[in-house]
Amino acid sequence: MTDPTIPALDPGERLLCGPGPSNVHPKVLESMQLPMNGHLDPDFWDILVDLVTGMRALWRRPEGGLTIALSSSGTSAMEAGFLSLVDPGDTVISCHWGFFGSRLNDFAHRVGANVVELTADFGQIVSVDRIMETLAANPDAKIVGVVHAETSTGAEFPLGELAEAMRASGSDALLYADCVTSLGGQQVEAEAWRIDYGYSCSQKALGCPPGIAPVTISERGVAAIQRHQGAVPYYYDFEELSKYWIDRPITYHHTMPILQYYALYTGIRLALEEGLEARWARNADAGRYFQEEIRSRGYELLADPDHQLVELTAVKVPEGVDGKEVQTRILREHGIEVGGGLGPKAPPIWRVGLMGVNAHRETADRVLAAFDAVLPR
Amino acid sequence: MTDPTIPALDPGERLLCGPGPSNVHPKVLESMQLPMNGHLDPDFWDILVDLVTGMRALWRRPEGGLTIALSSSGTSAMEAGFLSLVDPGDTVISCHWGFFGSRLNDFAHRVGANVVELTADFGQIVSVDRIMETLAANPDAKIVGVVHAETSTGAEFPLGELAEAMRASGSDALLYADCVTSLGGQQVEAEAWRIDYGYSCSQKALGCPPGIAPVTISERGVAAIQRHQGAVPYYYDFEELSKYWIDRPITYHHTMPILQYYALYTGIRLALEEGLEARWARNADAGRYFQEEIRSRGYELLADPDHQLVELTAVKVPEGVDGKEVQTRILREHGIEVGGGLGPKAPPIWRVGLMGVNAHRETADRVLAAFDAVLPR
Repeated sequence: MTDPTIPALDPGERLLCGPGPSNVHPKVLESMQLPMNGHLDPDFWDILVDLVTGMRALWRRPEGGLTIALSSSGTSAMEAGFLSLVDPGDTVISCHWGFFGSRLNDFAHRVGANVVELTADFGQIVSVDRIMETLAANPDAKIVGVVHAETSTGAEFPLGELAEAMRASGSDALLYADCVTSLGGQQVEAEAWRIDYGYSCSQKALGCPPGIAPVTISERGVAAIQRHQGAVPYYYDFEELSKYWIDRPITYHHTMPILQYYALYTGIRLALEEGLEARWARNADAGRYFQEEIRSRGYELLADPDHQLVELTAVKVPEGVDGKEVQTRILREHGIEVGGGLGPKAPPIWRVGLMGVNAHRETADRVLAAFDAVLPR
Repeated sequence: MTDPTIPALDPGERLLCGPGPSNVHPKVLESMQLPMNGHLDPDFWDILVDLVTGMRALWRRPEGGLTIALSSSGTSAMEAGFLSLVDPGDTVISCHWGFFGSRLNDFAHRVGANVVELTADFGQIVSVDRIMETLAANPDAKIVGVVHAETSTGAEFPLGELAEAMRASGSDALLYADCVTSLGGQQVEAEAWRIDYGYSCSQKALGCPPGIAPVTISERGVAAIQRHQGAVPYYYDFEELSKYWIDRPITYHHTMPILQYYALYTGIRLALEEGLEARWARNADAGRYFQEEIRSRGYELLADPDHQLVELTAVKVPEGVDGKEVQTRILREHGIEVGGGLGPKAPPIWRVGLMGVNAHRETADRVLAAFDAVLPR
């Protein structure tokens, strides 16, 4: 039997300035060429110890609780927490104003939660006060779920303020925070803010390839997982994962995607070397610069200016312009990926992300030049 | 606030001749340095089309059903099928004689199945006749689950014979086949054998890094998934995944681990270029050579000689020898990973895998030389 053939892989060069992935840092790529160890190699266990230290520093949870990564995407981490914490009928207050908040909301429904929904228009957010009123009206709520940085609209939610209000209220509800686009790009303080279940990804502000998902769980989050009765998929079982990541000698869980962990390790090492605060400032500078420049050209932004993210900017497609065509020309003529609206309900927008190695004014200028070329002023 | 630092990553060189991962093919590694495209880039969708063609050729299911990959490990694919197919109370006939069969069995219990267990001692298998008798006694069984190549013992199961017997019996039960260690290393015929749910991994006979799991589902398997009532985690939802992998225009599902897919693409391309039959023969030659050589030194093998795998050989630790110490010295003094027994019930063995780029007599000789040096004859 003759086997068919498939052509050699030949992907085009891309400057990735959409909602993510962003371009991979050259040193991260380099580290993926290091000799691959097995997942049960004692030297790899030592690497995991340092990786946990690095992830704890990144999340600002130096000790307590559980901080590891899932060997799957940010979406899986969004889901894993609900599967691990929520039994059918448990109340989840779900706050959403975009695609990823909606997905979080869907996942809460999927596990059979009693979901209390708080929504706002695209580009807006629900206020902390309104969430706290809802929490007061639902004192048995187990979880308050919210997206810190809504990548589909460019809106930032004041996660620290909500956390402080929840703590001050004495509520037992757990804070469930999507930090997929924020971690490494802006301030995230898992311990000080008491994020009970926080998750992120590798491919945005950390400048690593997509594939794994850093997760941090507070002490009370860990206790809630231990109390949770329902069956959890083994792949997402934090109690089992902890026997591999933390306990020694190790208990085999699954074969880790070793090269992805090399990448994450190096990405986090570079972030810590730069200094998190310096990194947040660099991201803010690049984002604010792009926003000012694009607005100075007459474009409008989707997000409420009081809640504009720095990592991602949603630019409204001007009336009479074919947004999809512009996006395609920027890709084909300039080799730059920018995003469009995500999902059937999205308004006509372009989404420009300046994350990781791309969080620089120089990169912003390349994107602006592409817009200028395709849509002359 | 000063951030802590973590040391630069410095993993040691390894010849990976344990149960997997095996060493990555240099061309696979090279392809992971190609420009990364986004998961919603139209050029990446084209890559997926060719990748599906390649995976279908690899599984020998040229058309029909669904053949894609999960963005998570082989373990997750073992679990995803049960989550997608089995409702509480459904009967699963689970055949197990080692760690991975036990895990499959655990996963069937985890989803609440009525599990009928057939077991054999480590190194042995349950006969096709016994499975067929059990199936006749449980005519409502939904699934017969079995591991083709039991990596924890080195035993091979005659999957093709079982498939033929099931087909001849007219049974409606689905054949659920773990091909984690077999796919790409020995004959697997998903369509001819009518494997209804088959899964594998990237890091063994395909010579790619670990991280993603090729899955093939027959027409009847797809129909059973569509009929399945229970909630399935979104990340494993084959109906949703199919909208991303197969339908066009694409519906966003999750951010794919792009570089891992580049790797799998290249690994499969190389396998097809070599020719699957030539590749199976190369694997068989390397395995049989190692087995003959190690037996000629007086070592005994764990598996029944009539059911000895080629990809993996479990060598019994001779009485009076500290198996763990030998394994550690082979690692530390020779830079070679071989496996030990897996799980608390495992007998004292070493597990030697010759897979992917390591399926050569020259590699076998390196492993043999290390054994000879540590345990002189």
